[in-house]
Amino acid sequence: MKYLYLTDADYQQLTADSAKGQDAFKASPRITSKGLKHWVVSDIIGGEDGLGVECLSGSGTIASAYSKAFQEGLTMTVVSGRTVGIGAYLARLGRRCIQRSDQPIILTGYTALNKLLGRRVYKSNHQLGGPQVLGFNGMSHLVVDDDLQAAEATLRWLSYLPIRVGDPTRCLPCPDPIDRDIRYAPPEGAKIDPRAALAGRLIGDCWQTGLMDRGSWVEMQRDWARTVIVGRARLGGCPVGVVAAESATQTVTVPADPAIPGSAEATVSQAGQVWYPDSALKTAHAIEEMNKEGLPLVILANWRGFSGGQRDLLDGILQAGSLIVEELRKYRHPVLVYLPPGSELRGGAWVVIDSQINTAAIEMFADPTATGGVLEPEGIVEIKMRANELKAAMHRLDPTIKQLKTPKSDTNGMQRAQSVGTSKKILAREKTLMPAYQQVAIAFAGMHDTPVRMIAKGVVKDIVPWEDARRVLATRLRRRLAENAWAQKLEEASEVLTHKAALDLVRGVAGQHVEQTDDKGVSWEVDASFVEWANSDMATEVLQELLTVSIPSWFHTLA
Amino acid sequence: MKYLYLTDADYQQLTADSAKGQDAFKASPRITSKGLKHWVVSDIIGGEDGLGVECLSGSGTIASAYSKAFQEGLTMTVVSGRTVGIGAYLARLGRRCIQRSDQPIILTGYTALNKLLGRRVYKSNHQLGGPQVLGFNGMSHLVVDDDLQAAEATLRWLSYLPIRVGDPTRCLPCPDPIDRDIRYAPPEGAKIDPRAALAGRLIGDCWQTGLMDRGSWVEMQRDWARTVIVGRARLGGCPVGVVAAESATQTVTVPADPAIPGSAEATVSQAGQVWYPDSALKTAHAIEEMNKEGLPLVILANWRGFSGGQRDLLDGILQAGSLIVEELRKYRHPVLVYLPPGSELRGGAWVVIDSQINTAAIEMFADPTATGGVLEPEGIVEIKMRANELKAAMHRLDPTIKQLKTPKSDTNGMQRAQSVGTSKKILAREKTLMPAYQQVAIAFAGMHDTPVRMIAKGVVKDIVPWEDARRVLATRLRRRLAENAWAQKLEEASEVLTHKAALDLVRGVAGQHVEQTDDKGVSWEVDASFVEWANSDMATEVLQELLTVSIPSWFHTLA
Repeated sequence: MKYLYLTDADYQQLTADSAKGQDAFKASPRITSKGLKHWVVSDIIGGEDGLGVECLSGSGTIASAYSKAFQEGLTMTVVSGRTVGIGAYLARLGRRCIQRSDQPIILTGYTALNKLLGRRVYKSNHQLGGPQVLGFNGMSHLVVDDDLQAAEATLRWLSYLPIRVGDPTRCLPCPDPIDRDIRYAPPEGAKIDPRAALAGRLIGDCWQTGLMDRGSWVEMQRDWARTVIVGRARLGGCPVGVVAAESATQTVTVPADPAIPGSAEATVSQAGQVWYPDSALKTAHAIEEMNKEGLPLVILANWRGFSGGQRDLLDGILQAGSLIVEELRKYRHPVLVYLPPGSELRGGAWVVIDSQINTAAIEMFADPTATGGVLEPEGIVEIKMRANELKAAMHRLDPTIKQLKTPKSDTNGMQRAQSVGTSKKILAREKTLMPAYQQVAIAFAGMHDTPVRMIAKGVVKDIVPWEDARRVLATRLRRRLAENAWAQKLEEASEVLTHKAALDLVRGVAGQHVEQTDDKGVSWEVDASFVEWANSDMATEVLQELLTVSIPSWFHTLA
Repeated sequence: MKYLYLTDADYQQLTADSAKGQDAFKASPRITSKGLKHWVVSDIIGGEDGLGVECLSGSGTIASAYSKAFQEGLTMTVVSGRTVGIGAYLARLGRRCIQRSDQPIILTGYTALNKLLGRRVYKSNHQLGGPQVLGFNGMSHLVVDDDLQAAEATLRWLSYLPIRVGDPTRCLPCPDPIDRDIRYAPPEGAKIDPRAALAGRLIGDCWQTGLMDRGSWVEMQRDWARTVIVGRARLGGCPVGVVAAESATQTVTVPADPAIPGSAEATVSQAGQVWYPDSALKTAHAIEEMNKEGLPLVILANWRGFSGGQRDLLDGILQAGSLIVEELRKYRHPVLVYLPPGSELRGGAWVVIDSQINTAAIEMFADPTATGGVLEPEGIVEIKMRANELKAAMHRLDPTIKQLKTPKSDTNGMQRAQSVGTSKKILAREKTLMPAYQQVAIAFAGMHDTPVRMIAKGVVKDIVPWEDARRVLATRLRRRLAENAWAQKLEEASEVLTHKAALDLVRGVAGQHVEQTDDKGVSWEVDASFVEWANSDMATEVLQELLTVSIPSWFHTLA
């Protein structure tokens, strides 16, 4: 601790100078060895608030309020100028961040860092917190070139949200017809292109339509964790959050940090259809944000699993994958999971988005060519139908082997032991048959992974061919939003009905007025009639009667 | 899509074999070119549930339930045997994980991974998910050698928790006196050893007591993000969660992943008193878990700030730092932040634990030698008192420079221009003075960072010398737990009082019975009287009267 000393005269002058003089610093008198009176200054407070702990405490107040606002309201941050320290934290606390490409988000200026490091390591703030860093790691959801673009991006984002937090999803009239085929399809033998599947694409002069309303798709956090694609779009006029699996292998270049000795730019390859720690985190965070935005969620599910190498475990694949479960479990709006053409959904990847994670919200649908199961057929065969089991099957089924094994009796009627020659013949036959048996085994295993079996086991709601997916899912979405809106009114009026009970009630009442399917699938025509009925005066009357007469009298009976 | 074919005879036999035969697979008849009838099998469902999507859906059910249990109840997982796939996810979803050192937690077995990678990359499951990976990244909170140790660790952890979730914190009689000095102190000029400060330490034959009850400290996630220390302990018999800053530089060795070409073991150095992405995440997650465990929280705050280099920003320092705000904001139990001897709390590090983050929970205290502010004195001087400002001060204050600058009149009474010789003398004098002025400037800046100023600005509650910290904090904790317990009863009884209002009411009523301080600090004797009173029959009567008479009549008046 260092002290400063004042002569008594200076002390008297300083404390006399202002009424607050004595409160502005703390000093203790001391008599020196020569008998002089000094004052030892130990603390300086200042006459008024300045740059110090009071700023930090004020920053704490803002941080707390903004953290609460993200959780309970809607927050969005446009970084239109350099953003430092608490400013950077606010941009993160509000989560939805639009960054101007020329404006950095940093904790400490590069000159201060260079001073700390003792050498000129960094050349600019942009190098520290430009989009190549904070777009790359998902901190910035959108990167724009100027303020006008930022304003456009903000307005567009807002257009997907309800007017007030908690209001129903805001569906708009849809210029792109709901009842149309999807024209984009993955070429024979090729993997699906998820962006084309969602948004459509131009091939020559022809527009191949996608699942979503034309022109409505906005991808976010594009440069982060590119094996998963997230964004907002409209489906039949209703805004939705979208999570889709990338199918192509991604090559990611991680920049070197000049402050770290030996740090070099690293190129990492990530396979498509696989969740890595970064893309699992991206998935979970996107779902969390969409939930708070009041958006229904559409997931194009096409994952072979979670990557489980040593580095993935080290980098927290379990931590990130768990968050997907957590965020989907809490989802309060309809979730439509669709397994697109040629897709796979295996093991843990299925588990974390299964409808049982959140039965009130999640419904799963599959294209007829989608597949799903614990392991891929080759993997199952490795475990359940190994060579020994296949050989046993040959001995049971193959006429040639059966004949070779038929015991030959000698002249005395005694059975002879199998000759060495016969054994060799059997071995040769086994070798000949093995490839075919393996193929059959794999085909047999693969047939356990079809949507027909998914339906039989009750894990998907319906098989919906890709070209029909738009009309089915868009109408299903409208139906579920209508159901939810009615159920919410019942919940609020009754104050005791659970969401599930209210929903059952709505469905029961609607069933008396709208033709229902036999519960063995989804019919978009039925869903369309439901939506039409739910928006009719008759439905309003029916539900009004429920609210004012039936439910109260029911409670009366209970009481 | 591959198909299998059945002859009509086989088909008839298979479907006749059992009542469920026709439901067990799906096949369509086809007439071959030779006029034979075949059946084309496309899907196999099986007579009963087997290994397939039904397992995945079941896993989804468990995952959802366990995720909810972590959020709403108490979860703890002992990994006593190899834990794979959904098992690994459950261990993570429940968060509190005790891993046997010889039992791996993995997503996929090493042989399957080797098959996928096409070569023998991994040698064991232990290599993938042993403690050197999952203890290293915080997935495993505790690593034990055998089941007995696991059981001991579990019981000890449970001993810190209330009997039922939501019950008050369970304080036990405390064999280690509350009213004792802390004997451990950092040696002159050395940084504090946080573990010794918390738990005490043995020096020769002498036990130097620490802040916490002797023998109660359990450190968790020790090998993860070692610049922050987290654990559970007891303070005066009451269980607490603890977060403390490490003061020594840590060297971390990140293992190489044999599956990644060019991957090499990397050694990273992390300075003490600094939050990095990993240690910020560790801090936030620990706070989240302790909050759910119903533990009051003690933070030994000693951070110079968040590390803001390019790699730190890339690795998500903003994301992780924000989580600290979020988790502290939601904290429902008393939080005591203490700035220990010689500690620093600067900039963003102060912001995220400031009492304004959660005014109902957080109180801050400081040792007289603690410091806090936006920047370190050297940094402030760089900005606010640069060389030019210091030179201006010299010209204002230094008698020699003043004299050199005194205009000399020539014989005609005309002032002469300052000679070159004089300018040189002034420059030389400035150079001589500069080191002293810089020292004074730094001392002056440093005096703005003292606890006396913190008190004056209202950001800390009291200055508590380290040797007194145990009696003051332990008694404060008991007082606040007593207040909270009473306030909770009032909240529940009134159904409309906020926690803050209930707390104010309790304090007001108590004030009529217990001598109060003048609100300019904390007195452990007063806190002790409060605790004694709160546990007395008289207090029970007083609060009973509040609950049954005063509050109801007050509401009656309002109505």
